[in-house]
Amino acid sequence: MGIKEWVVPQDKAFFDLFDEMAGTVVAAADLLVDFVENFENVKEKCRQVKQLEHRGDDITHQIYEQLNRTFITPLEPEEISRLASALDDILDYIDGTAQQMYSYGITETDDSMVQLAKLIQLSVVEIEKAVTGIRSIKDPGLIEERCIEVNRLENIADNVLGHAIMDIFKTKDAITIIKLKDIYENLEMATDKCEDVANVLSDIAIRHS
Amino acid sequence: MGIKEWVVPQDKAFFDLFDEMAGTVVAAADLLVDFVENFENVKEKCRQVKQLEHRGDDITHQIYEQLNRTFITPLEPEEISRLASALDDILDYIDGTAQQMYSYGITETDDSMVQLAKLIQLSVVEIEKAVTGIRSIKDPGLIEERCIEVNRLENIADNVLGHAIMDIFKTKDAITIIKLKDIYENLEMATDKCEDVANVLSDIAIRHS
Amino acid sequence: MGIKEWVVPQDKAFFDLFDEMAGTVVAAADLLVDFVENFENVKEKCRQVKQLEHRGDDITHQIYEQLNRTFITPLEPEEISRLASALDDILDYIDGTAQQMYSYGITETDDSMVQLAKLIQLSVVEIEKAVTGIRSIKDPGLIEERCIEVNRLENIADNVLGHAIMDIFKTKDAITIIKLKDIYENLEMATDKCEDVANVLSDIAIRHS
Repeated sequence: MGIKEWVVPQDKAFFDLFDEMAGTVVAAADLLVDFVENFENVKEKCRQVKQLEHRGDDITHQIYEQLNRTFITPLEPEEISRLASALDDILDYIDGTAQQMYSYGITETDDSMVQLAKLIQLSVVEIEKAVTGIRSIKDPGLIEERCIEVNRLENIADNVLGHAIMDIFKTKDAITIIKLKDIYENLEMATDKCEDVANVLSDIAIRHS
Repeated sequence: MGIKEWVVPQDKAFFDLFDEMAGTVVAAADLLVDFVENFENVKEKCRQVKQLEHRGDDITHQIYEQLNRTFITPLEPEEISRLASALDDILDYIDGTAQQMYSYGITETDDSMVQLAKLIQLSVVEIEKAVTGIRSIKDPGLIEERCIEVNRLENIADNVLGHAIMDIFKTKDAITIIKLKDIYENLEMATDKCEDVANVLSDIAIRHS
Repeated sequence: MGIKEWVVPQDKAFFDLFDEMAGTVVAAADLLVDFVENFENVKEKCRQVKQLEHRGDDITHQIYEQLNRTFITPLEPEEISRLASALDDILDYIDGTAQQMYSYGITETDDSMVQLAKLIQLSVVEIEKAVTGIRSIKDPGLIEERCIEVNRLENIADNVLGHAIMDIFKTKDAITIIKLKDIYENLEMATDKCEDVANVLSDIAIRHS
């Protein structure tokens, strides 16, 4: 068996796991958008998001196991570990915000939540494409474009958060402020985590092109 | 002097420091449980927790110094540094919550705090055993079992937090919500940090077995 | 061309970028002190801090690009990446707090804010000197002294925060508590990030001396 045949199946395993992870993150973002747009059956929808979060934990665990068993990896071990953990962080924030909206007893969602959820959704779709792109980095420019777009979306989310915070302090009571502030901030944190993933992907693209 | 004799004393130094660190974390968790169960002499108890936190900083510093001086380390430098910093994070959250309860002027503790403190205590006892286990990894399965238990405890803590949060929003005034929410969240964060330590230990067990 | 000539310009590029980054952090801290001492033209001053934060992002990006393009680096790649990211974190907290004070509609600042901002300023001046020191580590003791001072300042900031928190819970209404607590905590977090930078610099000094 040549070294190439020996290496390639393990490369494939990593890229397959990352594709599966990116797909899980996109599925969670889709649920989140539905969650804030149609805020009903909240408990059941939370359960579905939590299921995706658990699936993400499993995939992350498999990536680390694969990493610990493999001598020659398609990317640097540190890149694999940073990427896996950053993708998992997005999922944790999506899940965490959904669970928070449930345990805070929120009765209705608002425009800021919908905007932030949609920015998360747009970001993770870009990320999914960039993750697919690292399987065979022919054109690092394409990955870079996705990452620039994720950064642009994060800046918008930051602005949406700033305005949402200004609004709640103008008009609401303290308990509502506590609840909404946490929810807005956590949604925005999810876009920060998307930016972290984009930065890792961008480094990988430059280093391996 | 053979290479073995030259290497072994330094290995011993690392493992001794990690044992001492794990012991310090357990001592802090014991104090925390006493703190929330017998909420009296708060200022003095806070001082004792802070002392352990300082001792933890010293040990962590010694681990890094040892790491910077040593060429051949028993674990990867990155593993040593991740483990040291993750153990220190647990201690920081235990200390931070105790100081917070003091500066928030909390007058009594509640069941959720006791449950969370006990979950931290159970987690760090498992961690202490797993840390001892890396000294000579004969049976990675034993370390893995400890880590699975820490993950299980973290899930319970997450549920305790969710219910505690639901309760405070039902019944309390805004200022009490602000205080209790911070305290519950920081106690739960300590169990998240325990999970981080368990993940590092689990990686070490797989890689070195 | 000898290897030395080929290596040295890239070393210079790294150290120049780090000096520029440290200078940007100091400029932001100076603006922050002016911001809390003379709390007027808030929107314009926020814009200036944000500009420095963007400049910091650019410099950080250049450091990573340089790192991805360079085979032989004057410091370990991981040290470069930790230092760049830790410096950027200080800047993010300085900027974040300024933006927060604006969006929270704060109408006046207080002594605790001024004290914390000045502690940040003192810390980053130490950091700037220590960063200059890594260009040619003749005397690691000098870098170490700066780092010990940053740790001392962080402990003071921690105490200032504790007392500031005790005060707001004694006298203020819930909405004011929410606002001030976030601002104090984020200012103190900036000094934590200064401590992180000091720890990285201290490791570098020991390892390369």
